[in-house]
Amino acid sequence: AIADEVEAYFLKSTRGPMTGKRVLVTAGPTVEAIDPVRYIANRSSGKQGYAIAAALRNLGADVTLVTGPSSEKPPAGVNLVRVESARQMMAASEKALPVDCAVCCAAVADYRPSIETDRKIKKERGGLTDLPLTENPDILKTISQMKEGRPRLVIGFAAETDDVLGHAEAKMARKKCDWIVANDVSPGEHCAMGGERNTVILITEKGDETWPEMSKADVARELASRIAQTLRGPTLVKAAE
Amino acid sequence: AIADEVEAYFLKSTRGPMTGKRVLVTAGPTVEAIDPVRYIANRSSGKQGYAIAAALRNLGADVTLVTGPSSEKPPAGVNLVRVESARQMMAASEKALPVDCAVCCAAVADYRPSIETDRKIKKERGGLTDLPLTENPDILKTISQMKEGRPRLVIGFAAETDDVLGHAEAKMARKKCDWIVANDVSPGEHCAMGGERNTVILITEKGDETWPEMSKADVARELASRIAQTLRGPTLVKAAE
Repeated sequence: AIADEVEAYFLKSTRGPMTGKRVLVTAGPTVEAIDPVRYIANRSSGKQGYAIAAALRNLGADVTLVTGPSSEKPPAGVNLVRVESARQMMAASEKALPVDCAVCCAAVADYRPSIETDRKIKKERGGLTDLPLTENPDILKTISQMKEGRPRLVIGFAAETDDVLGHAEAKMARKKCDWIVANDVSPGEHCAMGGERNTVILITEKGDETWPEMSKADVARELASRIAQTLRGPTLVKAAE
Repeated sequence: AIADEVEAYFLKSTRGPMTGKRVLVTAGPTVEAIDPVRYIANRSSGKQGYAIAAALRNLGADVTLVTGPSSEKPPAGVNLVRVESARQMMAASEKALPVDCAVCCAAVADYRPSIETDRKIKKERGGLTDLPLTENPDILKTISQMKEGRPRLVIGFAAETDDVLGHAEAKMARKKCDWIVANDVSPGEHCAMGGERNTVILITEKGDETWPEMSKADVARELASRIAQTLRGPTLVKAAE
């Protein structure tokens, strides 16, 4: 752990292309409590988001990593904020603003149980025949559509099981983020969700690029390098509009 | 890992009070899929069940450990069966029968989503306003009420947040198991759920005993020793009826 801190210190102290830039990365699942013991969650491991936070740190960025529960080891040298629910993630993300770039990699629950009880729901008291749900705040949409202080670059992730490109392009239009990193999370041998490797499509204002299958660390390095290029280049995404 | 296997071999090869006895232990949470990425689960870590399986193995028992997803290291020298859902846990438990003793320590989901879809549910297609639920099979009740081949000793667990003893005694009567190990899982600093320590009440046909707070390993050793005593003693719980 000390070695990690030392590594992070020297990596960050080197002047990199992202030195002086502030970045928010969200990662992992969110956990939505039904009662003190039960919850709704999703299969996101946090691996891809943690790798992106580490890659941006390596380029010199000042990274805040807001993460849902994950058994992965978080990277050293970032501002780590642990949360459980979508509402907590929204609050922690807003607190991290302003940033130059927001990478919304977390698999945020779209819904939470409408009523959370502080006592365990008992089956014999009638229990549950259905679970009423309420829509959660949409972090990507909120940040993308900020009227003041919007990050120059807002990147969303789309985990899909079918029509990956179609759903991802629709998501980009709906949320008004700048880029979408889309991937297929259909269950299977090389499933991206929880696995070490990922095959992604990067969608930007210029179109879509399918990247070859690579490790999540390589996806992170490539994406971090593209972010650095975009935030440094003379034609900024937003300035070009 | 090799050291663990060697330890388990010598521990088991020693003649212990449970040598020749078959035991089923269920542990951990169950995970009930909503769609390929979302699920309902609970905060059980599997620690207490894994410790019980190890303690019974140490007394010479032939242990089948049926476990839901857990990041804990399972004990060596037991027959390990990994499952996700309550229905899978029911099937794996029935496959492990006949046994002399069943220790149903898993936090089995009482309910599962009525419909599981193989495509991710999309919010923009109307999404979910509520989640219809269906009752899961009751493993403890099923094993306790077997007409033929019932284990001589069936032990249930009751994780409660209020009126611990009352709920646990009612559970014992309803399920018709022989013993209940009850504990308080109210959230807090020393929460048993996920934590290392536990304060339990053991309820048997003779009444209830509150044990002092101790490590989960100590709870397991004490319980295993009581199981061994009961299965060896001249007055068996069931034979005495």
